[in-house]
Amino acid sequence: MYPKILIQLIEELRKLPGVGAKTAERYAFEIIHRDHQDIEAFAKVLLDVKTKLKTCVVCGNITEEPVCGICKDKSRDQSVICVVSHPKDIIAMEKTREFHGVYHVLNGVISTFKGILPEDINVESLIQRVDGSVNEVIIATDPTIEGETTALYIAKKLQIKEANVTRLASGLPIGGHLDYADEMTLIKAMEGRKKI
Amino acid sequence: MYPKILIQLIEELRKLPGVGAKTAERYAFEIIHRDHQDIEAFAKVLLDVKTKLKTCVVCGNITEEPVCGICKDKSRDQSVICVVSHPKDIIAMEKTREFHGVYHVLNGVISTFKGILPEDINVESLIQRVDGSVNEVIIATDPTIEGETTALYIAKKLQIKEANVTRLASGLPIGGHLDYADEMTLIKAMEGRKKI
Repeated sequence: MYPKILIQLIEELRKLPGVGAKTAERYAFEIIHRDHQDIEAFAKVLLDVKTKLKTCVVCGNITEEPVCGICKDKSRDQSVICVVSHPKDIIAMEKTREFHGVYHVLNGVISTFKGILPEDINVESLIQRVDGSVNEVIIATDPTIEGETTALYIAKKLQIKEANVTRLASGLPIGGHLDYADEMTLIKAMEGRKKI
Repeated sequence: MYPKILIQLIEELRKLPGVGAKTAERYAFEIIHRDHQDIEAFAKVLLDVKTKLKTCVVCGNITEEPVCGICKDKSRDQSVICVVSHPKDIIAMEKTREFHGVYHVLNGVISTFKGILPEDINVESLIQRVDGSVNEVIIATDPTIEGETTALYIAKKLQIKEANVTRLASGLPIGGHLDYADEMTLIKAMEGRKKI
């Protein structure tokens, strides 16, 4: 019914995560009413993104340089490595302004369900990286089954190293309510209870 | 914090209607994990869409040809014109399979709030189009203030013509509940009541 090129545009937009037919249509109509140069700018960014984006050779974070800004930053404590699943977890950590060490990005988590094996994630370079100069490796994968599996795998691999391996605490989220917490969170909060 | 090109991509995606920072970020990360040729295909469609899409010289619908498929279709009744606000309204009408006439797309509605004047929408070509061969003009703009204003404007302009000017009925939506209907809908449903 719609012209072919518009159908193609709608189909491309439907590929975005969580976008259905109606939303894709809405996006498409908004796009076709833009100026030609605005659409060209969008297309140019798309064409550039894959060529310009690299993976930091040290930590695996996304970067436009061979080594990312955090790894290059001499003011950061290179002896503490925080291991995260994805580059966006770094943004979340950095927002706290409390962590001054460096990162290691796995770019995924081990998942038997999705068939993601330890060799599919950026873990070997972490093992290589942890030498005598590293005091602590904080494993900050998500507190999910996959995140826990990955954390345990990494902890085991690092047993032979001198560095302390730690895991982010699980428990009740600040501002949350006890009666809204799921069982697993409550069990973890009990296990991790502290003297006040 | 993110590499510049990724920030640019997130910004481009944020321009889509109803897309906030978090959603744009999610879209961007999905895109950067695609194959290079998939992203290129997306960019190509964007570059093509504006050049390929034209406005039908007869009705104002979007088309890749000078005249759209519906206007070209000899089996359709050229004496009944259904006036809609946007090309997507044609899709909605066509789904009913009940209308066999032709369309006229205004590509907008008169809006004093948004500063859209009668000369900003595709109405002059409708007046020109309605000659002795046209029996009925069905005004199918939305039952909103703007849609009603536009309908009244068009009806007045067509007064000098011989064609009957009609408006889609307003009332309770099929499958709806009376107690959920807003006042205006209920008033319209009362006004438009029919003998059974």
